[in-house]
Amino acid sequence: MELQDKKYRILDIFFRLLKGEFVSVRQLADEYSVSGKTVSRDINEIRAYLSENEYRNGNAQIEYSYREKAYYLSMDDFLSSKELVVLIEILISSRALPKNSMEEIIDKLEGFTLTKDKKLIQDLILKEKHHYKPVGNDCKNIIDNIWSVLRAIQNQQVITILYYKMDRTIINRKVRPLSIVFSDYYFYLIASHKVEEEYVNRFYRIDRITDIIKHKENFSVEYSERLDEGKLKNEIQYMWPGRNMDILFEFSGPSVQAVLDKIPQSEIVKRDGNKYTIKAKVYGDGIKMFLLSQGAWVKVLEPVELVEKMKSEIAEMAKLYD
Amino acid sequence: MELQDKKYRILDIFFRLLKGEFVSVRQLADEYSVSGKTVSRDINEIRAYLSENEYRNGNAQIEYSYREKAYYLSMDDFLSSKELVVLIEILISSRALPKNSMEEIIDKLEGFTLTKDKKLIQDLILKEKHHYKPVGNDCKNIIDNIWSVLRAIQNQQVITILYYKMDRTIINRKVRPLSIVFSDYYFYLIASHKVEEEYVNRFYRIDRITDIIKHKENFSVEYSERLDEGKLKNEIQYMWPGRNMDILFEFSGPSVQAVLDKIPQSEIVKRDGNKYTIKAKVYGDGIKMFLLSQGAWVKVLEPVELVEKMKSEIAEMAKLYD
Repeated sequence: MELQDKKYRILDIFFRLLKGEFVSVRQLADEYSVSGKTVSRDINEIRAYLSENEYRNGNAQIEYSYREKAYYLSMDDFLSSKELVVLIEILISSRALPKNSMEEIIDKLEGFTLTKDKKLIQDLILKEKHHYKPVGNDCKNIIDNIWSVLRAIQNQQVITILYYKMDRTIINRKVRPLSIVFSDYYFYLIASHKVEEEYVNRFYRIDRITDIIKHKENFSVEYSERLDEGKLKNEIQYMWPGRNMDILFEFSGPSVQAVLDKIPQSEIVKRDGNKYTIKAKVYGDGIKMFLLSQGAWVKVLEPVELVEKMKSEIAEMAKLYD
Repeated sequence: MELQDKKYRILDIFFRLLKGEFVSVRQLADEYSVSGKTVSRDINEIRAYLSENEYRNGNAQIEYSYREKAYYLSMDDFLSSKELVVLIEILISSRALPKNSMEEIIDKLEGFTLTKDKKLIQDLILKEKHHYKPVGNDCKNIIDNIWSVLRAIQNQQVITILYYKMDRTIINRKVRPLSIVFSDYYFYLIASHKVEEEYVNRFYRIDRITDIIKHKENFSVEYSERLDEGKLKNEIQYMWPGRNMDILFEFSGPSVQAVLDKIPQSEIVKRDGNKYTIKAKVYGDGIKMFLLSQGAWVKVLEPVELVEKMKSEIAEMAKLYD
């Protein structure tokens, strides 16, 4: 076997360590048909290399685990087990990806993590995978869709999308792709298209785009009209189209912090006992859904149009139960 | 310099390739003070090792990029650029981690990704980082908190938590930690504690736990009372305490699929034109918030208690605007 050859063997041991494996001298000696002493010497050479080039190797060091009776690599560049767990929990609760894509990503993440806590993490992953419930989607491969759209955004390339509308009719629309955002289970493309000589921005769920045609046509966006993605992300609620609004409302529920968290561009302007007056910058009609969800904890004060919308919606809700 | 030594040099080149670097022969020759021919020979040895051990090396191969005029490693075990982008978007929109923890994780993820698409990804990350808006939290380190709780869950170890309640008072509570879930920006601990001889489950936001004391006391949960985490995750809404409920409601809004996605344990039992009757299994009072958010699109039919709750909430909402 080629791995009896020292130079391959040492690469192989290094590769295993870098993938977070526990490396046992006895086991490797068996596997490579060499002596334990030989394997130990190989490991020492890797150790020497690492310690002499520490500065650029993410502080990588070979350490010995008495529990596993084996060597392992500790390295700052690895995801720690803690970070892996957090990532997996967030990824799974996003529910955005089909099960197989989600599993593939988790397997890869696990591949570049210290395996010290293997059992705990594998138990967790197993349980989570088992109960995973992705949201429905119409496209062939959502990851490919996102990527394709992202490249068009970067190249400022005009695209035509074939899109399932909410009512399940299919439309064909030529748009200028501007940005991608993720919110509540779904990835959205923000793109603009021409309506009566003016460009308007719209959201499209990326999982409802069944086809993307890239045109040999580029666009440029005037600096003044350029979409400030971050600002937009911090202003949107529920991904409903609409316009920018400054709103003012009273909140008397148990956790004002949760409201401030939910609407990033918001602040308390008045406090009266348990009642807070909150001012916020929002984008789109989704804010109405959030305000309704809070029931009688929320009373909208401004703008007048929104007050009127709330009133008439509440009146219609009441009518349902007459 | 030690890297003039062949065995170290070859480890170094391999390490760089594994971290997704582009490796240029001329540049390495300069850096190691050896000839280009020598570096080429090193790269060929790594290539030979990989191709002879393909089966277990995630199909790793050294490839040449004409654009970069350099070698790089392609490997199935790496996160692809597409997957990295999706992970980063989801992580950032979760808003769960403080900025520095979030950045650290993204840097590590980037470290184990093919760098073919470096520019696109770095532009994206830069923009996203710049606008990142984490939710507020009270604890020293949320990642450590999650990890600590997770270990207690696995060991079925009783803990006392020091916890900021919604009204900002601090409580001390001895609990049996059962599970961790992530929902809408926050990580929650589900734990049970004794109230008048009976154990009840409660949610605690993990970022509001300021201290965790682990007791030398273990618990075991009867099989019949054991929490089915996955089931629970699919039934909870907004993390409000409450009980299991079967509910029935009419929905007449634009996207019934979005409602089915939002409540995983739900199904359409009747359709009448644009009006759907939906049956769902839910846990906790948070469902009321979701149903309210839908305004007049939703009419609750069962159970009677929930119908009454909706009615009285709507009446109170209306009163606010009288």
